[in-house]
Amino acid sequence: MGTSAAASYATNLAAIRAARHRIDGFAHRTPVVTNATLDAIANRRLWFKCELLQKTGSFKFRGATNAIRMLDDAAAARGFVTHSSGNHAQALALAARMRGVPAHVVMPSNSAEVKKAAVRGYGGRIIECEPTLEARESTAARVIAETGASMIPPYNHPDVIAGQGTIALELLDECPQLDAIIVPLGGGGLISGVAIAAKALKPSIKIIGAEPELAGDAALSKREGSIQPAMKPTTIADGLRTSLGPLTFPVVRDLVDEIVLVSEAEIVAHMRLAWERMKLTIEPSAAVGVAVACSAWMRARENADMQDVGVILCGGNVDLSALPW
Amino acid sequence: MGTSAAASYATNLAAIRAARHRIDGFAHRTPVVTNATLDAIANRRLWFKCELLQKTGSFKFRGATNAIRMLDDAAAARGFVTHSSGNHAQALALAARMRGVPAHVVMPSNSAEVKKAAVRGYGGRIIECEPTLEARESTAARVIAETGASMIPPYNHPDVIAGQGTIALELLDECPQLDAIIVPLGGGGLISGVAIAAKALKPSIKIIGAEPELAGDAALSKREGSIQPAMKPTTIADGLRTSLGPLTFPVVRDLVDEIVLVSEAEIVAHMRLAWERMKLTIEPSAAVGVAVACSAWMRARENADMQDVGVILCGGNVDLSALPW
Repeated sequence: MGTSAAASYATNLAAIRAARHRIDGFAHRTPVVTNATLDAIANRRLWFKCELLQKTGSFKFRGATNAIRMLDDAAAARGFVTHSSGNHAQALALAARMRGVPAHVVMPSNSAEVKKAAVRGYGGRIIECEPTLEARESTAARVIAETGASMIPPYNHPDVIAGQGTIALELLDECPQLDAIIVPLGGGGLISGVAIAAKALKPSIKIIGAEPELAGDAALSKREGSIQPAMKPTTIADGLRTSLGPLTFPVVRDLVDEIVLVSEAEIVAHMRLAWERMKLTIEPSAAVGVAVACSAWMRARENADMQDVGVILCGGNVDLSALPW
Repeated sequence: MGTSAAASYATNLAAIRAARHRIDGFAHRTPVVTNATLDAIANRRLWFKCELLQKTGSFKFRGATNAIRMLDDAAAARGFVTHSSGNHAQALALAARMRGVPAHVVMPSNSAEVKKAAVRGYGGRIIECEPTLEARESTAARVIAETGASMIPPYNHPDVIAGQGTIALELLDECPQLDAIIVPLGGGGLISGVAIAAKALKPSIKIIGAEPELAGDAALSKREGSIQPAMKPTTIADGLRTSLGPLTFPVVRDLVDEIVLVSEAEIVAHMRLAWERMKLTIEPSAAVGVAVACSAWMRARENADMQDVGVILCGGNVDLSALPW
């Protein structure tokens, strides 16, 4: 993939480098950790990028911060809106508060109280609506009409994707020897930013998507050559239930080398493994990446081809009162 | 405390520097993490040294590795013995395996299966005995007589204390601005090594012991001026139930500035807080340090005197099937 072709995607290496500079001092540079037990299982060296230790407990803070800091003061002062209710909502709330401007988060009235509390805890203003996508979109549109706020979607946005791509810059700075990076795959914002940055820096690197079998729409989209709708939201990996967007699909199609699917049992087992052996409270979406790293697919690969593998631990927001074991 | 007086303790800065060199490449240099939520509670900047991410899940691996690598090949080949059954046993087992020599771990027959499995998992040989201190000591003596192995006790040993002190070297390299370090206090091996190293490097630094109320024997020992026996082992912080030893008591008496006691409820609440907000599965003993950092005692202190405080997260070995909430 040459530079000229790469330039046709939602973002590029120069924009991701600018994002890194922009979020510096706001987002953490997260640590990379290793674990001998998991290396032995995977039969290679694994390098875990700890985005669960990022502010607000997930990588989403990078994209939200980059997007919010792209705008000039006048536009930013009118605030920001999203109708995501997961990690992106918390990230947007804190990123807006750190810029001293409002974040309006449209959430279905039946959202878990713990999610509402998290958004409020970071200073976000919650606007409740009926639990349908239509109600969420129309409510967000009304907020924008009333306030002049800017919409920051959770993944299908160039500045959000560029922010997530900063993870690859940090990871390859620290571990230039990586042969591959395993990235949990939901809407595709994370894997798009990582793939664009990593392949620009090191064209030989492999980008491996990690997806639940019960939310395997990205693997299907890549195979079919067009965006396939999200599956019924049954996987425990609630961050990976969404479908790809028009900005992320082309990157997944062209720059993601392989997508590996894992079962629900594997997700839970590897979540527990990470808690027990790595001492990190990864959320189910992050466990999908760990499960791929330890999968039969990975163990069967020639070690020489893939000696050093990065794994992005994307988040750690878990309700401790409802653990899946 | 001048250098000449410091030289009368079990170890000193030169020995701790040598230990750092000796364990390099075997032990992890653990990351230091920060957390805005906990900073806000403590009303100062907290720097958490992540020894729960150390090999075998606790700082004990440093001391065990240093002690095991101090011996010459002939002595090491005869193996090592301990009758501790907690984190030190796991640490000794792995440190011995990494040197290619046997570790004999004397454990009471009623020890939890999970603890036995952990020691076996790191290659340790378990010798069961009656669940009394007398039986443990006589069984260990028999193993030593039969094998010529060397006894490595969990804390009352100069090389073990020197190994634990390497934490302070790393922490002050990364955070030279620290005004104080909070250290969980059980047998005193960790706090002795940290206090000797830290005060030698920075005489103005305060060393604060963190102890459960239900295992407050070190605070009592310091007040009384002599080693007081361990209390009934009722605290959830099972790593902190032991009494001080002859090598650790003088350091606690002279170099530890203050010992703060916390309740069982505070231990559990701060363990959960760390899991939820820091995403780290700290064990109850580590939560004792977090509880002190967030305590009314700490919050009442002038910020200017104690702006930057290190907190040692000593371990993360927890049975996920039996969480205390």
